Amino acid sequence: MAEVLPDMMQAIVFDTPGDPNVLQLRNIAVPKPGIGQVLVRVEYAGVNRPDVIQRQGHYPPPPGHSPLCGLEIAGTVVAVGQGVEPERLGQRVCALINGGGYAEYALAVADVCLPVPDGMDMAQAAALPETLFTVWHNVFERGWACEGETILVHGGTSGIGTMAIQLARLFDMRVIVTCGGADKCARALEIGADHAIDYRAQDFVAEVARITDGAGVHLVLDMVAGDYVARNLQCLADDGRHVTIAVQGGAKAEVPMWQVMARRLTLTGSTMRARSDGFKALVAQEIAQNVWPMVESGELRPVMDRVFPLAQAADAHAHMESGAHIGKIVLKVAA
Amino acid sequence: MAEVLPDMMQAIVFDTPGDPNVLQLRNIAVPKPGIGQVLVRVEYAGVNRPDVIQRQGHYPPPPGHSPLCGLEIAGTVVAVGQGVEPERLGQRVCALINGGGYAEYALAVADVCLPVPDGMDMAQAAALPETLFTVWHNVFERGWACEGETILVHGGTSGIGTMAIQLARLFDMRVIVTCGGADKCARALEIGADHAIDYRAQDFVAEVARITDGAGVHLVLDMVAGDYVARNLQCLADDGRHVTIAVQGGAKAEVPMWQVMARRLTLTGSTMRARSDGFKALVAQEIAQNVWPMVESGELRPVMDRVFPLAQAADAHAHMESGAHIGKIVLKVAA
Repeated sequence: MAEVLPDMMQAIVFDTPGDPNVLQLRNIAVPKPGIGQVLVRVEYAGVNRPDVIQRQGHYPPPPGHSPLCGLEIAGTVVAVGQGVEPERLGQRVCALINGGGYAEYALAVADVCLPVPDGMDMAQAAALPETLFTVWHNVFERGWACEGETILVHGGTSGIGTMAIQLARLFDMRVIVTCGGADKCARALEIGADHAIDYRAQDFVAEVARITDGAGVHLVLDMVAGDYVARNLQCLADDGRHVTIAVQGGAKAEVPMWQVMARRLTLTGSTMRARSDGFKALVAQEIAQNVWPMVESGELRPVMDRVFPLAQAADAHAHMESGAHIGKIVLKVAA
Repeated sequence: MAEVLPDMMQAIVFDTPGDPNVLQLRNIAVPKPGIGQVLVRVEYAGVNRPDVIQRQGHYPPPPGHSPLCGLEIAGTVVAVGQGVEPERLGQRVCALINGGGYAEYALAVADVCLPVPDGMDMAQAAALPETLFTVWHNVFERGWACEGETILVHGGTSGIGTMAIQLARLFDMRVIVTCGGADKCARALEIGADHAIDYRAQDFVAEVARITDGAGVHLVLDMVAGDYVARNLQCLADDGRHVTIAVQGGAKAEVPMWQVMARRLTLTGSTMRARSDGFKALVAQEIAQNVWPMVESGELRPVMDRVFPLAQAADAHAHMESGAHIGKIVLKVAA
């Protein structure tokens, strides 16, 4: 399966942060796999909100990560680093990666790769890792979600939102989402949400109280923060959990500590990007055991928005920033 | 062991909330034990901050609880309710109770009583339950404290603070406390704190950073809330936990949600008082297994401040409100 690899490849780079058109196609060196890594010939790369924030200059890559955008890919293993079995060569994989996805070749940690099932579309495979790792870890591991519980998810038609709807349903939870507008609410319901609240037309706190007969939800998956936090806490039942994975509405929040104490609420959160390779490998293992059977059976597929050619990464970013997308945006690198 | 019980008893009551002198000694009916309850002839009753706040009118007893102050007692079981073995009669016990401790007789849930070891002073026994249940549950169960970890406790010479110091040391943790003044810091160190920070003279955030070589603490036991919260979070290491058990500095806090997410902090809290009898029995069982051997051996004793006669409950409250106490204040009811 070994093949002669080029020295150079096409990749999307930017020299200074700015609006989408700072993204440019350029020839750069093909990276070489280190210990425990594989080199993947990329077919598709997922576009995620952190890529946009990185391009804007507000989310520099952690030390040791690629300076390129792109946190998830699907493709074929074409080279292996030290300590990786040569049997990996030629495997079709998808992976959460430490940046560098917007390129013809990208490095991945071998233990963070998941096998793409036969017949599964590679664009869909590239659209899975980032939201799947993030939702799995934050909803089930940090948020202790259990079957029978009710979860509130903001941004129900985002990449994260659509994955959260599907995972919550597959694991027998009831899911309430908020979306901006009636059309997005309708799509969220089609995707599997039990209830969709149009936050532009309705007060989500009052709606959650109505939907749950005043009982509240067990868990809020929060990507807004700011002044949503106090309102989210009002939506929580006693002993409820609030897990923050983004702060699009503001990095600070006024929190009623008396409520936290009297109702035994828990606030936590995390960001997947800065975690160690070892941690990501652990999450990959848990996903392989608990979720991958549902990918293999076809029960779980990402909700796809649009595919852009790699050279049009700027358009893909502008599309994400417009907020008009429903589900995942991916870049077609090669196929 | 059965004895003839009086119909009436002396107790401390108040008709309207106010300053300490609203507390008055009065004759009221002796309560009758219900299912699963025992009646205890009280020797000593602990005085706690929630009693003071209740007297001030800011912490009404939960539904079904006694309107009298007093959340912990030590004494002798003199009557048992339905479902309680008669062998309990005559036992010397201490207990966390649902109010009513400031009286000659008080009801306790049989499964929440702990046996007072032979030779142990009953005043000390009465001073254990409230802080022991609170610290045990919040530090070890909600805060996941582990041996080898470092904990920051505000109010190191309070009843809660002195118990937290001792439990932390007995379970092989390092404990940093804050106190108001050099004298209190010296006492906290004598009681077992590894470090005591005089918050009047030093910035505790800077001191914690210095003491931990910048690593931060694993856990903050917070009874201040308000503007301490953001400072507490600065003291936490990555993955640190912040457990709030009182809000003496303000019920609201500005929380940096980006820090919560990026450093995977967890904020939670609880109040013991409103929990069910079943929950309190569960905590009692865990304390019986894990902590009571240290009470029996004499390793764990509450730090005692002063004993007031029951009739001087007002003085006891005024003393607590002065902040001059170190450790526990108890009322002597009979002996």
